[in-house]
Amino acid sequence: MKNIFILFFLGLSLSPVSAQFSVEDSMLIRSVYDEALENGEAYGNLKFLCKTIGPRLSGSENEKRAVFWIKELLQEMDFDTVWLQDVMVEHWERGKKERCVVHRGNSDIYIPVSVCALGRSVGTDGYLSAPVVEVSSLEDLKSRKNEEIEGKIVFINEPMDEKYIETFRAYSKAGKIRYYGASDAAEKGAVAVVVRSLSTKYDDAPHTGGMAYKDTTNKIPAAAISIKGAKLLHDMLDDGGVDMTLKMDCKTLPDVKSYNVIAEIKGSKYPDEIILVGGHLDSWDLGEGAHDDGAGIMQSIEVLRIMKKLNIRPEHTIRCVLFANEEYGLRGGKQYAKMVKETGEKHLYAIESDAGGFTPRGFSFQVDPEKIEAIKNWENIFAPYLADRFIIGHGGADIGPLKASGVTLIGYRPDTQRYFDLHHSANDVFEEVSRRELHLGAATMTALIYLLDKYGLPEGR
Amino acid sequence: MKNIFILFFLGLSLSPVSAQFSVEDSMLIRSVYDEALENGEAYGNLKFLCKTIGPRLSGSENEKRAVFWIKELLQEMDFDTVWLQDVMVEHWERGKKERCVVHRGNSDIYIPVSVCALGRSVGTDGYLSAPVVEVSSLEDLKSRKNEEIEGKIVFINEPMDEKYIETFRAYSKAGKIRYYGASDAAEKGAVAVVVRSLSTKYDDAPHTGGMAYKDTTNKIPAAAISIKGAKLLHDMLDDGGVDMTLKMDCKTLPDVKSYNVIAEIKGSKYPDEIILVGGHLDSWDLGEGAHDDGAGIMQSIEVLRIMKKLNIRPEHTIRCVLFANEEYGLRGGKQYAKMVKETGEKHLYAIESDAGGFTPRGFSFQVDPEKIEAIKNWENIFAPYLADRFIIGHGGADIGPLKASGVTLIGYRPDTQRYFDLHHSANDVFEEVSRRELHLGAATMTALIYLLDKYGLPEGR
Repeated sequence: MKNIFILFFLGLSLSPVSAQFSVEDSMLIRSVYDEALENGEAYGNLKFLCKTIGPRLSGSENEKRAVFWIKELLQEMDFDTVWLQDVMVEHWERGKKERCVVHRGNSDIYIPVSVCALGRSVGTDGYLSAPVVEVSSLEDLKSRKNEEIEGKIVFINEPMDEKYIETFRAYSKAGKIRYYGASDAAEKGAVAVVVRSLSTKYDDAPHTGGMAYKDTTNKIPAAAISIKGAKLLHDMLDDGGVDMTLKMDCKTLPDVKSYNVIAEIKGSKYPDEIILVGGHLDSWDLGEGAHDDGAGIMQSIEVLRIMKKLNIRPEHTIRCVLFANEEYGLRGGKQYAKMVKETGEKHLYAIESDAGGFTPRGFSFQVDPEKIEAIKNWENIFAPYLADRFIIGHGGADIGPLKASGVTLIGYRPDTQRYFDLHHSANDVFEEVSRRELHLGAATMTALIYLLDKYGLPEGR
Repeated sequence: MKNIFILFFLGLSLSPVSAQFSVEDSMLIRSVYDEALENGEAYGNLKFLCKTIGPRLSGSENEKRAVFWIKELLQEMDFDTVWLQDVMVEHWERGKKERCVVHRGNSDIYIPVSVCALGRSVGTDGYLSAPVVEVSSLEDLKSRKNEEIEGKIVFINEPMDEKYIETFRAYSKAGKIRYYGASDAAEKGAVAVVVRSLSTKYDDAPHTGGMAYKDTTNKIPAAAISIKGAKLLHDMLDDGGVDMTLKMDCKTLPDVKSYNVIAEIKGSKYPDEIILVGGHLDSWDLGEGAHDDGAGIMQSIEVLRIMKKLNIRPEHTIRCVLFANEEYGLRGGKQYAKMVKETGEKHLYAIESDAGGFTPRGFSFQVDPEKIEAIKNWENIFAPYLADRFIIGHGGADIGPLKASGVTLIGYRPDTQRYFDLHHSANDVFEEVSRRELHLGAATMTALIYLLDKYGLPEGR
C-alpha cells in the first residue's frame, strides 16, 4: 500500500481499477510507464541506428550492418533466445541521384525539379526526354485516348485528400497512383510515369515507395515528384506544352539473403504459445528510416527490455520479430508466416508498430466487428495514459500473412498528423522523433502485451 | 441530403448525431474542419509572424511591429470591428547574450556553459564570480545553513519529473524554482541563482521565463542553465569545488505602452453578449514564439476567419483578443478584465489557446467538479476529430482575471509531449509547428465556439 500512497501523493495517474483488473495490474502498468519515461533506451538505440548506421534499404550492405548490430544489441540485453531467420529479399538499387529538368519546347531555360525513383522501377538507360501530359488520377488516365498518352511522360497529379482526419486514409486512397501508375500509363503507350509525392508537406523532398509492374505491360520508369515540383509542373502545363528530361540509374538485382531478427522471453507456463511484437528493419534510403520503421523496431525491443527489467515473467512466450524487406516485397513477413504454418508454432497475438513513433493514441484490432465492444472494455486502463482509442482496423503489413494461421492481429496506433510530412522521404530523420512520444509508445505496447499475456483479449459473445 | 451522401461516400468522418445535436450541426462542424484543413491560413500567418517579424518580447519594438501588422491583417480580413486596447506593459531587456564559464579554483581551464537570464532579472553589473553550491530543490535550499550559501552562486538542479504523462504537471511542479529561486537564495545570502532549465530535452538551449523578486530580499541575478550545462556542472561538483563567472546585461526599463489587439464578429441576436477566444501576442526573445503563443493567436484569428468564410452568423458576439505581456506581468489580461469589470460588458465564455500548436486532444473547463459530467456529453461530437477529451482544468493565464466577473474559462488542450522540448527556448521556431496540427486545433476551437453560441455550455444539475 505504501507505493500506491506515494503515487497518489505525487499526483501521478493510476488507471481506474475496473472489475476485471486488479490493483496490482494498475500498479504494474504505472511502473511500465515510469520505466519507459525515466530509463527508456529506445531513443538512444534509434539514434545509433539512424546516425551511425543510417538507412537500411532491403538488400543493401547497410541493411546487413543493421541486422548484425541489432542482433548484438539483443544478445547484450540477455534475452532468453536471439536468432536470425534467413530470408531471400528483393534487391533494388537507386544508383546515382536522379536528375530531372522541365522546359518549354522553344525555350533554352531548363528548370530542375526534385524527383526520386520509385522502388522496383527500371532506370531510364541514359537521358529520357518526352512531352509531359498531366492527368488527375488513374481514372482520368484510363479515360484518355491512347493518342494523348503515346510517347509521353504521364504526370499523375492526384493530391492526398487533406480532409481526412487520419492521414492513413488519405494515403490509402491516393497510394494507388504510386503502385499502379506505371502499368496503367504503359498500357496507353507512355514512356515514363511521374506521380505526385504522397506527402502532406509543401516542400522539395520527393517521397519514394514501392511500385509494381504488371506482366502484361512494358516496364517504364516510374518516379515521384516533390510537392513543390508538382505545383511548378502543373502551373507550367497550364500555360502550354512542357518537355521533361529524366535520368534514373536504378535497377533490380538478383535476390540476396537477409534476415528477420528475432528475440524472445520464454513463457513461464505456456512457452509454446507466442505473443509476437514487431516492426520492420528495412527502410527507404532517402532519409534514415527513423519513424518508418526505426521507431517501431526500437519500441518492440523496448517491450522486452521493460518486461525483463521489471521482472515481469510472462506466462506465454513474448517474441520480438524485426522483419526484413517490408518496403517492397514483404519477404520477411511472408517467410515468417510460412515458417509458422510449416512448424505449427502457436501464435496467439501479433502486434505491429509501423505507423511512426508519435504520441500514442491506442490500438487497432483486426477482428470481426462484433468483437470490438468487449475489447473496448480495456480502454479504461489506458485512459490515464491518453492511449485509450481501441478501434477496429489494420494490424500491420509484416504480420498480415499470419492472419491465415488464425493469429489475432493488432496495430499500434500513434498520432498520424505529421507522418506524411516525412514518410519515405529525406525528412524521415532522427531529429523528427520525440523521446517522450517514442517511449510512451513502447510503454503502451508493453502494457497491452502484459494484459494479453495475463488475461487474453476479451471476447465478445 | 446530397452533401451528406457525398461525405459518406468519401468515407469522411461525420459526428454521430446525438439527441442534442442536429444533422445540420454535424455537417457544419465537418465543413469547419474541411475549411481549416484545405484552406487554413493560420500556418501562413504564423510563418510571417515568426520569420518576418520574429520574437515579440513585451515592451520591445518587435512587439509593436507585430501589433500593427496583426491589426492590419485583421482589418484586411474585414471583421466587423478591429481595435487596439492600450496597455502599459512591463519592459525588460536581455541586452547582450549572456556569458558563463565554470572552472575549478586551481585550474586555468574555463568551460563555457549555456545560460540565459530569466525575465525580470537584474544584470550582473560586469563579471560576477563566485563558488557554486548545488541544491536539489527549494526545500533543500531552505534547509541549508546560511554559511553554506553566503557569497555563493546557488545552482538549483531540480529536474522536471519525467513520469507525468501530461508535461504541464511536471512544469507546474518544477516551475517554482524559476519563479522563487532568486528570492529564496538571496534570503540566505547568495549572490546569484542559476536554475536548471524547465525542459524535457537534453540539449544546450537554456529555457528562459518569468521570475519575481520579493520586496524583502536583495535582487540577485537569476539565470537558467541548459540541461547539458546542468549535467556538466553537476558532474564537476561531484568531483569538487567549482567557480562560476557570469555576465548578464539584462535590465528592467520603465513601463511602456503596448496593446491588446481585438477583432470581433457582431452577434446577430445578442450583440452585447460576448464569447471570447484568444492567446497572447508577446513571446520570449530566444526563439520565435512559434508555439508559445504564435500558434494560439493565429488559431484565434482563424476561428473568426472560418466563421466568416462559412457564413456562420453567430447569435452572440465572437471576439478575438490577442493579449499583451503574458510572459511576465500579465498586464494585457489584467487590463482587459479591468475594462470588462468597469464597463459591465457581458462575457459568457472565454477560450484560450496557449499550450502549443500540437494535435488537438480536447478542452479543459475551469468549472466546479459537478458540472463536468454534463459537459462531457459534448465529447461525442468531437470524437471523429480525435479531440474529445473534455476535462476539468485550467482555462488560461490571460483569461484568468475574467474569472472574477463570472466568465466561464476554457482552455484549448493539444498534445503536450513535445511542448517542453522547445518552450521558452531557442527551439520554439516555426519549423516545429505542423500545419495540419495547427489547423486541426483552429477547427476544434471553432466547432466548440459554434456550439457554445448556439446551445450554451450544458449545465449539470
